[in-house]
Amino acid sequence: MDLRRREFAALVLGGAAALSLAGRAGAESDPLPSWNGGPAKDAIVKFVRATTDAASPEFVPLAERIATFDQDGTLWVEQPIYTQIVFAFSRVPEVVKERPELAREEAYRAILSGDRAAMANLSMGELLSVVGATLTGMDVETYRDEVEAWIGQARDPRWKRPFTDLVYQPQIELLNYLRANGYRTFIVTGGGQDFVRAYSERVYGIPPEQVIGTMFGLSFKPGADGKLLLIRETEVLLNDDEAGKPEGIHLVIGRRPHFAFGNSGGDREMLEYTKAGAGARLGMIILHDDGAREYSYGPAQGLPDSKIGTFPRALYDQAMKDGWIVVSMKNDWKRIFAFE
Amino acid sequence: MDLRRREFAALVLGGAAALSLAGRAGAESDPLPSWNGGPAKDAIVKFVRATTDAASPEFVPLAERIATFDQDGTLWVEQPIYTQIVFAFSRVPEVVKERPELAREEAYRAILSGDRAAMANLSMGELLSVVGATLTGMDVETYRDEVEAWIGQARDPRWKRPFTDLVYQPQIELLNYLRANGYRTFIVTGGGQDFVRAYSERVYGIPPEQVIGTMFGLSFKPGADGKLLLIRETEVLLNDDEAGKPEGIHLVIGRRPHFAFGNSGGDREMLEYTKAGAGARLGMIILHDDGAREYSYGPAQGLPDSKIGTFPRALYDQAMKDGWIVVSMKNDWKRIFAFE
Repeated sequence: MDLRRREFAALVLGGAAALSLAGRAGAESDPLPSWNGGPAKDAIVKFVRATTDAASPEFVPLAERIATFDQDGTLWVEQPIYTQIVFAFSRVPEVVKERPELAREEAYRAILSGDRAAMANLSMGELLSVVGATLTGMDVETYRDEVEAWIGQARDPRWKRPFTDLVYQPQIELLNYLRANGYRTFIVTGGGQDFVRAYSERVYGIPPEQVIGTMFGLSFKPGADGKLLLIRETEVLLNDDEAGKPEGIHLVIGRRPHFAFGNSGGDREMLEYTKAGAGARLGMIILHDDGAREYSYGPAQGLPDSKIGTFPRALYDQAMKDGWIVVSMKNDWKRIFAFE
Repeated sequence: MDLRRREFAALVLGGAAALSLAGRAGAESDPLPSWNGGPAKDAIVKFVRATTDAASPEFVPLAERIATFDQDGTLWVEQPIYTQIVFAFSRVPEVVKERPELAREEAYRAILSGDRAAMANLSMGELLSVVGATLTGMDVETYRDEVEAWIGQARDPRWKRPFTDLVYQPQIELLNYLRANGYRTFIVTGGGQDFVRAYSERVYGIPPEQVIGTMFGLSFKPGADGKLLLIRETEVLLNDDEAGKPEGIHLVIGRRPHFAFGNSGGDREMLEYTKAGAGARLGMIILHDDGAREYSYGPAQGLPDSKIGTFPRALYDQAMKDGWIVVSMKNDWKRIFAFE
């Protein structure tokens, strides 16, 4: 028998909970210091108290405390383009070396030439086709190692920092606060499941089994040396966006979340599914309205709609009507990044 | 803050671990009393000790302690036919009422007539088509309720007991023993994921998020009353058998198991995947060689091959060659069922 209480708590609940088990952090200290006071912060604290107090009519048993978070635009920056697409672009030269016919396609020509304006004009269909060509064909362990290596050295164009520095500090605090209260935190992303898994534990404290994302089919076959490998195929098994989000949640968890956080039209169904459950359910959605500290985009602010992180006016209206909490980055977040 | 240590341990590790956390069960008491002494039991105990002793070169960190179990024929009886198929058959009359054209098909005629010989002769393709027609079209919560209600009252033909009584007592002890040592136990079944989830927690102590099975596609749309529902579609998203098992394991867990237990050709790839990992990996496979207490089938015993639980000679040879532990029900299990 080798069961270590501390190690176990740290594993499943993250550092904050281990701390809380070991000595109980003072209840007076603010668990969300990067959040400004206001309706959004109040809603979070009220929800957590109501669902974790055994005397509350809205108490939720530990096993059912599931919180789901979109990633791009919800946990980290998604502009000017999803990080996974930057990774896919970085792999284009070596893929074209093996498949020279791709260089004749417009999308690959734009990427290879480094023409930023042309790249920005690629359609979502073209981007996904580049993802399919560059991020499949290898075994899952090789892929994880390649993502890890790339993300360790790549830099974003605006802050010139590792992409993993561009996670939102208020959300890291929220993840920790939920976990300290017995919630299991899941990522539910339209991005590739295995891409996010390569860094989710280190960056968010979220282990691989709690990452739901777009899934590629896998084949199980011998590699060059005869060793059996799980190979990433180009077929998309689950497009974990829009209605694919409740679908992915059911397939991987089999429980309806009590808490969901998103930032775009791709998160609508996850929020609807969460809110349609009985008892206390909190849905939250971020408004990117801080062009100075982050980005400002989407028609909710009267700005032109964006290919990345679409937030149509109808979604805003639905949020108001259905009681989702809209979070203004500008007003609700005291600090956006840890490096500020 | 409302974190209860005991409740938490009971949730994630099951009752045995909570007990062990609370007071430490005596290390002298045998955790596997329904197993006879011998190479199989020795292999289990040796594996658990080696992977949980921090001083051992084969130590496995808590997060990586993943054990996967096939269900049919590994955790409970699969003869004369999978329980899920019995459930599907029970639904045929009401489905035919709604779709009378099905009554013209040979498979449905056999089922409706109650002709056991004809039913036994249905091909696996016919059986799966009946499953597709009878176990889809409703929302996931309705389906769970219907499985629960049926399995609460149905009886198996031989022992005249609830199917959930036909779980193997030695395996319940093994699941508890692994969990008490920090292993998370998963079911990885060719059966329907949501079928097994309806009773897995009550019967095996395995929560829904630790059940991987054959997955049907889901749509998210309004029901008759306008409420949004997750509807089970007929499209099979993942056939969680053979190579589908390592695939399902990767999609849901994203970690390679250290321990895997199966009983048929459908488990071969799961065992291969498990054993191909670095460090300590234990693969086990059950031989159904006890016709008196359970069933005896499969060519490994020189018996004709069976549609259910195929165990070809080549699989036995592979087990010997690759060091999988073959468990003889007759010799290794002192007691098979709790009701004995």
